[in-house]
Amino acid sequence: MKYSSKSLEKAVEALSALPSIGKKSALRLALHLAGNNGEKKDRIIEAMRSLKEDLKSCTVCYNYADTDICNICSDPSRKKNLICVVETVKDVIAIENTQQYSGIYHILGGIISPLEGIGPEDLNIESLVQRVKENEVEELIMAISPSIEGDTTIYYISKLLEAQSNVKISTIARGVSFGGELEYADELTLGRSIHSRTDYNKEISL
Amino acid sequence: MKYSSKSLEKAVEALSALPSIGKKSALRLALHLAGNNGEKKDRIIEAMRSLKEDLKSCTVCYNYADTDICNICSDPSRKKNLICVVETVKDVIAIENTQQYSGIYHILGGIISPLEGIGPEDLNIESLVQRVKENEVEELIMAISPSIEGDTTIYYISKLLEAQSNVKISTIARGVSFGGELEYADELTLGRSIHSRTDYNKEISL
Repeated sequence: MKYSSKSLEKAVEALSALPSIGKKSALRLALHLAGNNGEKKDRIIEAMRSLKEDLKSCTVCYNYADTDICNICSDPSRKKNLICVVETVKDVIAIENTQQYSGIYHILGGIISPLEGIGPEDLNIESLVQRVKENEVEELIMAISPSIEGDTTIYYISKLLEAQSNVKISTIARGVSFGGELEYADELTLGRSIHSRTDYNKEISL
Repeated sequence: MKYSSKSLEKAVEALSALPSIGKKSALRLALHLAGNNGEKKDRIIEAMRSLKEDLKSCTVCYNYADTDICNICSDPSRKKNLICVVETVKDVIAIENTQQYSGIYHILGGIISPLEGIGPEDLNIESLVQRVKENEVEELIMAISPSIEGDTTIYYISKLLEAQSNVKISTIARGVSFGGELEYADELTLGRSIHSRTDYNKEISL
């Protein structure tokens, strides 16, 4: 495509580098922004600057945070002996939106996937084991998207924690359809599946 | 929705203010940008700054430009006696992409629409008439999306230019379906419809 202005071209290039935004969509957005007064552009500039400079990763659970410890880990009303293990920040947001969970989180940063070359050492598994060993954790809720790789990851973590017999490992109920993605589940299904979580060892013995 | 970080929240708010981007899409984009190294964020910041500070409107045709005169109006290989009249910058980009047009443009900034309170005085019609009077213009190609409002606009302009008997007014061929939007037409259809443009006075006498 040819553009009459370098500014417009730059905007289209920058926006079409985002996922699910093609050249045509990027052009629509760029023209919308060009026609708008400065406000929307200023808000985007400020948001990008903030993402670059202010965004931190919680040193405990790896959630995005404004400080070293995220607002969930530092919330005194949260049960510290209940850890929900998830793949990504998106899953934390999805579970938080159900308003059914009062524990804290641990973000793995993905799941074990040999096909994509992701091994246990690429994920925040070591630090999860440390957390369980060093703190009084009663239960780990594995809120991992149900798939072969997800099941492998849960199995791997449960093996590592076999020595910690005082920790119960549960998985969220299979209300989430097999092969489905956690972040797209509706809030009711996701909320219920946390309530009726099943004991991991019981489930695999069925 | 609740976010663990103000930065993330700001990014979602700023991005969801754009057309066709809802909260969920904005969150996906924000998380993608948060997870990305600085590069994409920097490019977006620079693009927004450039849109704010560098983008100009061509003083001749109202196209977006980097200088006072856009690169189409200042191109010596363009036929200056052939003006294509369009609604918006998007239409210029669509026609330029056909690579079938060698004249220059005039962007009205919309079409006459009494229902939306847009009258001739809100559009760049006066300046179009001036351009035709002050320059040797042989033909005006009305590349206006075919609709009642579009036809009204063409009729209004043709009436204003009745005294300029040396100017031929044509419309792009009705290859573009009635009620359709110009910017979504494929390049072949749009290119051909410019080639086989019809004499406006002939068309309305049919």
